[in-house]
Amino acid sequence: MANITKKVSWSSRADESGATGEGTPLLNGSEQPRHSRQLSEGRSIFQIGRLSTVDLEEEITSDEDSLRGRPKEIPHNEKLLSLKFESLDYDNIENQLFLEEERRMSYMGFRCLEISRWVVCGLIGFLTGLIACFIDIVVEELAGIKYQVVKQNIEKFTEAGGLSISLILWAVFNSAFVMVGAIIVAYFEPIAAGSGIPQIKCYLNGIKIPRVVRLKTLVVKVCGVICSVVGGLAVGKEGPMIHSGAVVAAGVSQGRSTSLKRDFKIFEYFRRDTEKRDFVSAGAAAGVSAAFGAPVGGVLFSLEEGASFWNQMLTWRIFFASMISTFTLNFFLSIYHNKPGDLSSPGLINFGRFESDVRNFLCVFIFCFSPLSCAGGILGALFNVLNYWLTIFRIRYVHRPCLQVMEAMLVAAVTATVSFTMIYFSNDCQPLGPEHNEEYPLQLFCADGEYNSMATAFFNTPERSVRSLFHNQPGSYNPLTLGLFTLTYFFLACWTYGLAVSAGVFIPSLLIGAAWGRLFGILLASITSNATVSIWADPGKYALIGAAAQLGGIVRMTLSLTVIMVEATGNVTYGLPIMLVLMTAKIVGDYFVEGLYDIHIKLQSVPFLHWEAPATSHWLTAREVMSSPVTCLNRIEKVGTIVDVLSNTSTNHNGFPVVVQVAGSDEPAKLCGLILRSQLIVLLKHKVFVELARSRLNQRKLQLKDFRDAYPRFPPIQSIHVSQDERECMMDLTEFMNPTPYTVPQETSLPRVFKLFRALGLRHLVVVDDQNRVIGLVTRKDLARYHLGKHGLEELQLAHT
Amino acid sequence: MANITKKVSWSSRADESGATGEGTPLLNGSEQPRHSRQLSEGRSIFQIGRLSTVDLEEEITSDEDSLRGRPKEIPHNEKLLSLKFESLDYDNIENQLFLEEERRMSYMGFRCLEISRWVVCGLIGFLTGLIACFIDIVVEELAGIKYQVVKQNIEKFTEAGGLSISLILWAVFNSAFVMVGAIIVAYFEPIAAGSGIPQIKCYLNGIKIPRVVRLKTLVVKVCGVICSVVGGLAVGKEGPMIHSGAVVAAGVSQGRSTSLKRDFKIFEYFRRDTEKRDFVSAGAAAGVSAAFGAPVGGVLFSLEEGASFWNQMLTWRIFFASMISTFTLNFFLSIYHNKPGDLSSPGLINFGRFESDVRNFLCVFIFCFSPLSCAGGILGALFNVLNYWLTIFRIRYVHRPCLQVMEAMLVAAVTATVSFTMIYFSNDCQPLGPEHNEEYPLQLFCADGEYNSMATAFFNTPERSVRSLFHNQPGSYNPLTLGLFTLTYFFLACWTYGLAVSAGVFIPSLLIGAAWGRLFGILLASITSNATVSIWADPGKYALIGAAAQLGGIVRMTLSLTVIMVEATGNVTYGLPIMLVLMTAKIVGDYFVEGLYDIHIKLQSVPFLHWEAPATSHWLTAREVMSSPVTCLNRIEKVGTIVDVLSNTSTNHNGFPVVVQVAGSDEPAKLCGLILRSQLIVLLKHKVFVELARSRLNQRKLQLKDFRDAYPRFPPIQSIHVSQDERECMMDLTEFMNPTPYTVPQETSLPRVFKLFRALGLRHLVVVDDQNRVIGLVTRKDLARYHLGKHGLEELQLAHT
Repeated sequence: MANITKKVSWSSRADESGATGEGTPLLNGSEQPRHSRQLSEGRSIFQIGRLSTVDLEEEITSDEDSLRGRPKEIPHNEKLLSLKFESLDYDNIENQLFLEEERRMSYMGFRCLEISRWVVCGLIGFLTGLIACFIDIVVEELAGIKYQVVKQNIEKFTEAGGLSISLILWAVFNSAFVMVGAIIVAYFEPIAAGSGIPQIKCYLNGIKIPRVVRLKTLVVKVCGVICSVVGGLAVGKEGPMIHSGAVVAAGVSQGRSTSLKRDFKIFEYFRRDTEKRDFVSAGAAAGVSAAFGAPVGGVLFSLEEGASFWNQMLTWRIFFASMISTFTLNFFLSIYHNKPGDLSSPGLINFGRFESDVRNFLCVFIFCFSPLSCAGGILGALFNVLNYWLTIFRIRYVHRPCLQVMEAMLVAAVTATVSFTMIYFSNDCQPLGPEHNEEYPLQLFCADGEYNSMATAFFNTPERSVRSLFHNQPGSYNPLTLGLFTLTYFFLACWTYGLAVSAGVFIPSLLIGAAWGRLFGILLASITSNATVSIWADPGKYALIGAAAQLGGIVRMTLSLTVIMVEATGNVTYGLPIMLVLMTAKIVGDYFVEGLYDIHIKLQSVPFLHWEAPATSHWLTAREVMSSPVTCLNRIEKVGTIVDVLSNTSTNHNGFPVVVQVAGSDEPAKLCGLILRSQLIVLLKHKVFVELARSRLNQRKLQLKDFRDAYPRFPPIQSIHVSQDERECMMDLTEFMNPTPYTVPQETSLPRVFKLFRALGLRHLVVVDDQNRVIGLVTRKDLARYHLGKHGLEELQLAHT
Repeated sequence: MANITKKVSWSSRADESGATGEGTPLLNGSEQPRHSRQLSEGRSIFQIGRLSTVDLEEEITSDEDSLRGRPKEIPHNEKLLSLKFESLDYDNIENQLFLEEERRMSYMGFRCLEISRWVVCGLIGFLTGLIACFIDIVVEELAGIKYQVVKQNIEKFTEAGGLSISLILWAVFNSAFVMVGAIIVAYFEPIAAGSGIPQIKCYLNGIKIPRVVRLKTLVVKVCGVICSVVGGLAVGKEGPMIHSGAVVAAGVSQGRSTSLKRDFKIFEYFRRDTEKRDFVSAGAAAGVSAAFGAPVGGVLFSLEEGASFWNQMLTWRIFFASMISTFTLNFFLSIYHNKPGDLSSPGLINFGRFESDVRNFLCVFIFCFSPLSCAGGILGALFNVLNYWLTIFRIRYVHRPCLQVMEAMLVAAVTATVSFTMIYFSNDCQPLGPEHNEEYPLQLFCADGEYNSMATAFFNTPERSVRSLFHNQPGSYNPLTLGLFTLTYFFLACWTYGLAVSAGVFIPSLLIGAAWGRLFGILLASITSNATVSIWADPGKYALIGAAAQLGGIVRMTLSLTVIMVEATGNVTYGLPIMLVLMTAKIVGDYFVEGLYDIHIKLQSVPFLHWEAPATSHWLTAREVMSSPVTCLNRIEKVGTIVDVLSNTSTNHNGFPVVVQVAGSDEPAKLCGLILRSQLIVLLKHKVFVELARSRLNQRKLQLKDFRDAYPRFPPIQSIHVSQDERECMMDLTEFMNPTPYTVPQETSLPRVFKLFRALGLRHLVVVDDQNRVIGLVTRKDLARYHLGKHGLEELQLAHT
């Protein structure tokens, strides 16, 4: 039973409303298998959702045939585009209601709105900073307790023998934490798994990902990340901050919580996709800013992923939120660390200060950057390929929540065991001097006044390990220790990413890169030791290059990543080298496989729009790209027709061109507007019908408020009862449709269509002929279908996955 | 005579081609006075151009009546929009030729293009860095020589008396330098005057400013800025770097120099406005980056001023150019300073390192930021108002080149005299310790081992003075010295900005602000000296806040300015305070008057498009905004008609909708394309005519190359001879017109039109009715006309200024 009722978690919203695509009619709609049956065969890559009871019943009643014919294997679906994702309406629906409201508003009204936008952004930054602070402090405290207990235990058994009991204690500790983290994720909110960056990328790209910005997601995310970091997994707490910031933004900006059923009656103007997405950009930026102490990097991240049109005021607000967030985190952490006002470490991680005299660095860089960046690209690609296979495996066999929890616990136990074994067999003892900044030194079998450096590498938080690798004196690390550490951590991190726990991949990547970078530096120094090249001596510089190369090889985020790294390094002169390393790593890595986030987005079959149309797509025109025929509605349409159109799951439109026929003429109907499914639903719900005799049934005039109240969880068409009498009534769409939809002629080239679509953040673009008749509709999926493959332009198939 | 032949320098290009507007027909065209007569009455705010002999003759022959009726006073024209500025074609003209070329191109072809874009950006960065380096070194050397000579002279006369001879020597020295700088600017290239930032802002906004990106402009700019800085004017050399970078970019990217008549036959693909403007963005960013060592600030400056649609790859290339530029400058300067590899001072100015323990700073900030930022806003507004009056005065009375040169020399002499007097009467002696970083100490009447601190303030380069104000120990400055210095420097800087010399206003603003900020700090410390508040003691922090406030109050650039300041400060924790200061200063300043650059742009009547439509403009629709009626061309049009349309100066179109009439039907003509004046000119020049018998006169098929060769200096219609026989031929526009122009229905609201226009960087937007008939044309001027004034939405008048 559990198997049948599995449902792709991202799709629940689309499914609830009965809408599953933007406006892409299936040409052979009748021959297609039914939508909901197909749904049960799709599997989320990110996580497999648990079904609420309401969903369960719906699923069962509507899908009795889904038991039969279910294939054992889920197809690789990176060559498919799913129709189940809706787009966000980033384009304002300038219908009469909206225009009336805007025209009524005075200049002061707009000023007040603008001020409240600033207030909201300030709040977003503040709350995001607080959350980062909370996570950091709780992790520190719990990790401290864990360390004390384990250390005492180890010290006891080091003398007496029987260290295997310590190992068990450690493994149980870690597994317990991870179990809690995995259970809340797998059972309560699967969308909270992973770093959340792919989901936020999709959201900012304009794709509605169900439940991604809910309060419940935030709570699970925060608890989950604490558990997984304290559980000693090879993860970071930075990535989830971006997701957390986005949720905070979506919540604060709406002035209500649907989950808590509280409506504060404020910020009602912001209850639409356009405004919400802007605030979510600010939230994501605040998250980046809190995670890395990089406010400018945060702004660039948001712009890189989300921006269509560059909006000056929006960018400034995003920057404001980022600044507040860094500042809040920094301030409260300085109080926590008993150094109030010492704002020297903005962000959850910073790389420490690198000195400005970069002569050494330049020499190192010029001679070694190409091998190191290539290595980063190749290792990154290897990481991604391994993780890709693992993900495919997980999609097929590890989709039950209980299995997911067990896998997470297994990883935690293995991580503990491997670490312990390596610590046990390591004899890399280092003197415990005042200049060492390890917080958790472990003596183990070392002489008094020394500590086991392998234990340090595993016991410290990854953030601290990265900083040690960058800044510790030459000679602090044994090459063998580093080599073994790199190897094990690489595989552990790879195994860990994609588990049903909240965790990021930034810090593990940096740590792996820093480790092999430093190893490279040590080896190079030992080779050239008899020459007079003291400039080669500082292995910390190699660690920095290695970390940048490895991170660039895995995630491939480019511009914002450079700025984040530069800001975290705190020295602008490192900018150019870091940029070149990241670029080279990206180019080398791209030769083999895509970036980690892109792989996961593709496996999810999300119709993700890139910044530009594929280079060689000029021979395609709107005529080839568009979906046609399109279901159009008349400006005054019969209610029955509307209900039928909305209920028809095979057409799954979300937007309908509205046409008008000149009465008594045989001219073809002209385009006069565009109306959305969600608007029609609200109209039906409020029964805004006109009787044939043209006296209104419902005297109350519908207002924008009614649409805003229903936003964003519009009821499905099935839940609206329309009587047979009402079906005969007419509905006048004039007031509610967008009377000026953007249109293109059918000869328009794909790049031109793409540019218009992307620049304005459109959801529907109507294709008209020279008589202004509707001949097609271009939606996100029609554009996302085309991509450059190995053999030139390829077209992805659309499917009801 | 010279009076008559004065011509607004920005307009020369528009004038040459006979085109003076985007496509805005004058409704009462026949009643308007002739265009060129009006032209002679307009005055450039930036500078008054000298006329070349060819222009002179044209002007005389066509404007004999301009002697009569010329008003004595030039009207204040900030309430007008000039029709003389053309827009750039940022939208690709996707005609058949273009599409054929794109379709022929393989994937590798696109890769090569992309690589050459990167190479060009690298070159731009490198050359911009070199230019910055050149300016810096020449200024240092010349200033050093000047200092030595003057110092010896002063020392000689201090003992013997008769210091007035020193004064004269100094004043003559300065005036001579300034004279050279002013002569080359006023006589050879008036567009090179000032910082060039307003011009680059306009260019990036999409307005074609004649001669702004020519090689000659660059040479004059570089020499001019060296002369004015060495001449001791209250100017900086940072602003002009932005202009220089832009010129470098425009030159390098085209692979040829029209001025030098060299065509390297490379980068031919980039010879169109779209690509050129992208490269100019990169150049401007590289300029900012070199000036302030702020690569991210540079990117944000370019995006803030120029970006329509956020283009990922473009942004990354801009960042690359910025990085290379900073790095080049830094590297060569480190060699010049005999510290090769010490890359600690990126940029022509940096603020030195501020420590991370900002506790003091925070306390200072929280209590003093609002008075200081308000003061900055008010003083900035005062500066702008004074400069505005001065500019009006200059427009009216100081428009001859010789007068401009004399004014510049006068300012130089006055600056020298005032400085000398203040040094002479100052008795602020400071001990000459090793910790002082003044390069040019002057003993004057001080005891041995001491130096005159007022002399230092005037003798040092402004960059060094700013850094001293930020970082010198408490007690280094006498309050009276600072007060007098602030006062005189404020008025000198205000007088200087707008002179016919190449110079920037950034550094003077920072210096004024730092001076009164530090003064405030000292006064506050003396008031609270008996309390236990040592945290108030460091006046350098006040200087930083003051500098930010003053700069924000004057220029009001916001996001990029914040980032530039943060990067120059080198510490991200100062980001939030600096941002708040800049915002407050901007809000306070905006209450009184606009920013300095905006004032100058407005006085120039440039149709500058802001980021968004005015808030309360929803009641306007395309119907009210558009220009109509529009001159349309048939797809197959008579040559005579085309020549007449192009020659008609009263319509001054630059873009013409192309319509097609179904043969034999009486249906109205439908829109089928759009063609530009420049394209028609090339067609006429190459005589691509079709005889009535439909055999081509000219067998050679026109190619994109022909258009590219003519770019950007298309000949005026007057220079093309079309015989009477040829006038009877037909011209087939099908291949050359853009077949898919963007259109909007006439009910579209202004904000929606604005958004489409701005997001895609359009030049013409066709307004059609529901039959797809052309009913109007929206151009930049139609949108720029509307702005929010004190009394709500105001409409500017269009005029042939």
